[in-house]
Amino acid sequence: MGDMPGYTVGLVQMTMGTDGDENLRRAMEKVEQAAALGAQVICLPELYRSQYFCQKEDAALFDLAEPLNGPSVTTFQALAARLGVAVIVPFFERRAPGVYHNSAAVIDADGSLAGLYRKMHIPDDPAYYEKFYFAPGDLGFRAFNTRFGRIGVLICWDQWYPEAARLTALAGATTIFYPTAIGWHPQEKAQYGAAQQDSWLTVQRGHAVANGCYIAAANRVGFEQPVPEQAGIEFWGNSFITDPQGQWLARSGDAAEDILTARVDLNDLETIRRNWPFLRDRRIDAYGDITLRWRDES
Amino acid sequence: MGDMPGYTVGLVQMTMGTDGDENLRRAMEKVEQAAALGAQVICLPELYRSQYFCQKEDAALFDLAEPLNGPSVTTFQALAARLGVAVIVPFFERRAPGVYHNSAAVIDADGSLAGLYRKMHIPDDPAYYEKFYFAPGDLGFRAFNTRFGRIGVLICWDQWYPEAARLTALAGATTIFYPTAIGWHPQEKAQYGAAQQDSWLTVQRGHAVANGCYIAAANRVGFEQPVPEQAGIEFWGNSFITDPQGQWLARSGDAAEDILTARVDLNDLETIRRNWPFLRDRRIDAYGDITLRWRDES
Repeated sequence: MGDMPGYTVGLVQMTMGTDGDENLRRAMEKVEQAAALGAQVICLPELYRSQYFCQKEDAALFDLAEPLNGPSVTTFQALAARLGVAVIVPFFERRAPGVYHNSAAVIDADGSLAGLYRKMHIPDDPAYYEKFYFAPGDLGFRAFNTRFGRIGVLICWDQWYPEAARLTALAGATTIFYPTAIGWHPQEKAQYGAAQQDSWLTVQRGHAVANGCYIAAANRVGFEQPVPEQAGIEFWGNSFITDPQGQWLARSGDAAEDILTARVDLNDLETIRRNWPFLRDRRIDAYGDITLRWRDES
Repeated sequence: MGDMPGYTVGLVQMTMGTDGDENLRRAMEKVEQAAALGAQVICLPELYRSQYFCQKEDAALFDLAEPLNGPSVTTFQALAARLGVAVIVPFFERRAPGVYHNSAAVIDADGSLAGLYRKMHIPDDPAYYEKFYFAPGDLGFRAFNTRFGRIGVLICWDQWYPEAARLTALAGATTIFYPTAIGWHPQEKAQYGAAQQDSWLTVQRGHAVANGCYIAAANRVGFEQPVPEQAGIEFWGNSFITDPQGQWLARSGDAAEDILTARVDLNDLETIRRNWPFLRDRRIDAYGDITLRWRDES
């Protein structure tokens, strides 16, 4: 490794329209732009291929799903090889009839598949009816080697779980990417919106601190109202990259498309972990109850 | 329970002098003041009885330790009973010759002992030579019933560990208290001080969000230089209380003594957990590797 080992992360914050092919075309364009800015590991938002369809439960929408070797992923394998960049491509995975996942393919810079992540924590809240669509992931929490560095991928709702970040960091990820689709319910935004967004930013910055790794979250942006009789969701953007102390390296606004880049410096990561040696002192003898739903007896 | 079940938390942020009896007297005075402000569960800073002696390794300093039934704790049992408040009393515990802990007694409002916590994560950094003094705790991560509510106690370095907060919350704690002694190395403050403090605040606010519980951290304040040839530590105060979304309810400055109070509203806690149902979706089937030091094979 050279003097300053590391790699440059790129995030795409974008709006999604109702035409899936157009979303694909625009996502490709933005990955090209990120690469032109020097990004080497580039992440798209969750389910970039469509508007956020989970606002209603409709069995016909399983038609949006594709296998891992469908065009939502393979198109980016060709692009990654051409540009010489790694790309994290979230997609609605059709694994078998009746078995669908909210997944992300990690494509290495030669176009090969570095690995697959399937969203482990599936939400179910008003207008986020994901439990209807997605079987919980069964591949666990992983890290993937790319040409540029070892990275991890978690998806959206996973953001709220310290266990997910910890297990991904313990697998050797130096950056944890979070493709995301989060926003405000219009009727809640005025009263609760600022606190909600601050909680979302804070818990992820906390993962950076606790694990001594970089965090990079790519969110969608824009208002989507696929069900006219529902209020829709205003996706809040705020894609960001933090260093291993949770300090901002880059952050987007809440209304416009954007491309973010930042340098992951593995010397910094090592220095921070040497000076804040949290991993050294973990009480692995005393964490067993983490696998309980609730500690009824304690 | 009444219309707005809950209780009022009180935190003491104070300076410690070289006279242990004077520290005890002043701590009592401040607990009285907190009670007069309406606080019902009151927490002192870590090792309130002395200056932060871990800045050097000196076997003579084990003389500062006391058993659980020594005056550092029993004095507060009498005070708690007189005031009708619960008090969290951190102390340097002498358990046996050669077996010492960094502990906190939880005293209920009738003066009885509600329980004992022994710091589980022990740091060892320049001027924080705690591994020399304290055997790692062997009581695990607990919650304690007081007259006013079920609370948890963790101590200082535990703050950086999501596992500790999770296990305490899963045991039913509605507030996690963190008696603390953290500050700046004078030679680092200008360059790194702001980021260090922000990391410390952020990771704890993240625990509030991830677990849907209140967080209350009581730090010491003031400059202490027990070893003249060392630079000393400027303890940075910033004691704080957040709600279960990590939003500030109260926060002290970095230079002066202070007493903070805030209301824990169990209706709010329940509402937040209903609307951000993180505990529902934990993948307890997939967290087993949390008990590994590092996931070499993944």
